[in-house]
Amino acid sequence: MTPTIGVPEVLARSRAAIGPAMAAALDRLNPEIRRVATYHVGWTDADGTPVESPGGKGIRPTLAMLSAEAAWADSALGIPGGVAVELVHNFSLIHDDIIDRDTERHHRPTVWSVYGVGPAIVAGDALQVLAHQVLLESSPERGAAASAALADATAAMIAGQAEDIAFEKRRDVTVEQCMAMSSAKTGALLGCASSIGAILAGAPEATVWALRDYGRHLGLAFQAVDDLLGIWGDPARTGKPAGSDLRQRKKSMPVVAALAAGGADSDELRSLVVGPVGANGSLGPLTPDEVERAAYLVEACGGRAWTAVRAKANLDTALGALERVRLSAVPHRELADIAVFVLEREA
Amino acid sequence: MTPTIGVPEVLARSRAAIGPAMAAALDRLNPEIRRVATYHVGWTDADGTPVESPGGKGIRPTLAMLSAEAAWADSALGIPGGVAVELVHNFSLIHDDIIDRDTERHHRPTVWSVYGVGPAIVAGDALQVLAHQVLLESSPERGAAASAALADATAAMIAGQAEDIAFEKRRDVTVEQCMAMSSAKTGALLGCASSIGAILAGAPEATVWALRDYGRHLGLAFQAVDDLLGIWGDPARTGKPAGSDLRQRKKSMPVVAALAAGGADSDELRSLVVGPVGANGSLGPLTPDEVERAAYLVEACGGRAWTAVRAKANLDTALGALERVRLSAVPHRELADIAVFVLEREA
Repeated sequence: MTPTIGVPEVLARSRAAIGPAMAAALDRLNPEIRRVATYHVGWTDADGTPVESPGGKGIRPTLAMLSAEAAWADSALGIPGGVAVELVHNFSLIHDDIIDRDTERHHRPTVWSVYGVGPAIVAGDALQVLAHQVLLESSPERGAAASAALADATAAMIAGQAEDIAFEKRRDVTVEQCMAMSSAKTGALLGCASSIGAILAGAPEATVWALRDYGRHLGLAFQAVDDLLGIWGDPARTGKPAGSDLRQRKKSMPVVAALAAGGADSDELRSLVVGPVGANGSLGPLTPDEVERAAYLVEACGGRAWTAVRAKANLDTALGALERVRLSAVPHRELADIAVFVLEREA
Repeated sequence: MTPTIGVPEVLARSRAAIGPAMAAALDRLNPEIRRVATYHVGWTDADGTPVESPGGKGIRPTLAMLSAEAAWADSALGIPGGVAVELVHNFSLIHDDIIDRDTERHHRPTVWSVYGVGPAIVAGDALQVLAHQVLLESSPERGAAASAALADATAAMIAGQAEDIAFEKRRDVTVEQCMAMSSAKTGALLGCASSIGAILAGAPEATVWALRDYGRHLGLAFQAVDDLLGIWGDPARTGKPAGSDLRQRKKSMPVVAALAAGGADSDELRSLVVGPVGANGSLGPLTPDEVERAAYLVEACGGRAWTAVRAKANLDTALGALERVRLSAVPHRELADIAVFVLEREA
């Protein structure tokens, strides 16, 4: 199926449908936690005053709703799934920002830097459990299956995060390990988002699996593009300093691929980014000159091209998964459009 | 029903039944996370080497198994519930230790102080979601109800923790607010532990509610005793310095009750523990002399006696709840024994 235009409409439509359900979910939180959560999602400022916010793109809730529609059901069946996945996504962002000591996200101070580490941990914990409450109350029969799928995806995402932390201290991360980590950290939750509406709609397993595979590969494509932006992205658009992943010595896909290439450039890259044997953990950030040199070396070793090819290949696999079963035509087209649109906008 | 002796046997029996199920659950974790989790529960040292450990008392899993038996079912039906509640309990301990900056628990360094804040956050997150995986996979029909009950209890526990953090910065915590916070923070999860086996056994609602009320009031009684120990406990037994709650200006039940008493002693206590108006957040710990004086004032204002009365009243309410429905006699007696045994051992 050839992707068409029109994606912003489906995102806006989904936001209008998910917004009230998300607000109702956050209203269940204790006031202390709700203040932190509404700040994090951009609905209020640090004091709790409502603000006009463009909000996130809302890709995950949109996928959840479209997955119900693609499985020939009413999009409303996907709403609790969209809310639940968005809650888990936000829980992971709040905790990741503490772990990575990031002080800014989307040009706003992160939750822990505004409210402190304790309230940020508690808010993340609360959003994780709220997601399961929303699903388990949504439908007596199907809520449990959706909750189990979300729990599995969340567990995979958390395992990916643990690997990511462990990789920072290791010299010997292989391309395969890096891909597996990315798949777990990003792909699992997107795979859940893009199939949870179908689960809530009681769709056949083959449909759920096809939609999940679409989301998992979309996640891998996202991650590849994100890794490219982490080195070559425009700071004005990414909201991060140029080459920030290299500065932090992050073993992202382009870097790992370049390190695996071998040869003089690859060796020089290794000594720059990984440092000498035994230096792990004691290395500071790269200087701007080192970042520039490292970016050149990653590209010279083929790491940039390899990652771009991976992004495209995963996008193709994602689109191919949608062809495995008979989906409703309009949401099928919209799922394809979203994949192409988001990747092109990001890249 | 008059409590009898014999509680250590039931705890040992439960440990033998829960241990392998707990090990199987932890084996599902990513190796990085499993290392942290097995250290936390005392099965391994910081490097992952197995150690002989007495382990915790295992009250929660015991309650879960007994709640299945009390509802006239096989105790095995309660095992996934016992594992799940224990996982949530441990998730909360790992995160609470980060939040409270506690470096020791049960005479061992806390998880964050051994592995760092990031791995501790991730390990706690992983245990929370693992609990739901265990339940949702345990039984197609009843796993969802058990998971929903655990999610509600976890949400209440997290809300209690958020209140606890907020209370530290407030001057005006009432006795009622303090009780509500304690009830949420401790009572909700114990209420879930003491009824989840009955839920998994498909027991009637009245039975589930009676068992849950027993656990909630047992939790309040525990909390009251814990607050007494936090001021007057023997450091050799509590593993905390004498008067540690006062040192940290914690608004525990005895303190809040004493502050509410009014009069000269109460005013002096307020200026010691709460400090002058506007001083919140900038106050350091009390000196040993101030701790001693504050403990005297709490007692003089009746805070110690009031809290002891609350502990006893909640124990009586817990035991009374068990009389509301017809429970199987042996587990009924064991539930009553556990309540009395644990409170007396702690007090």
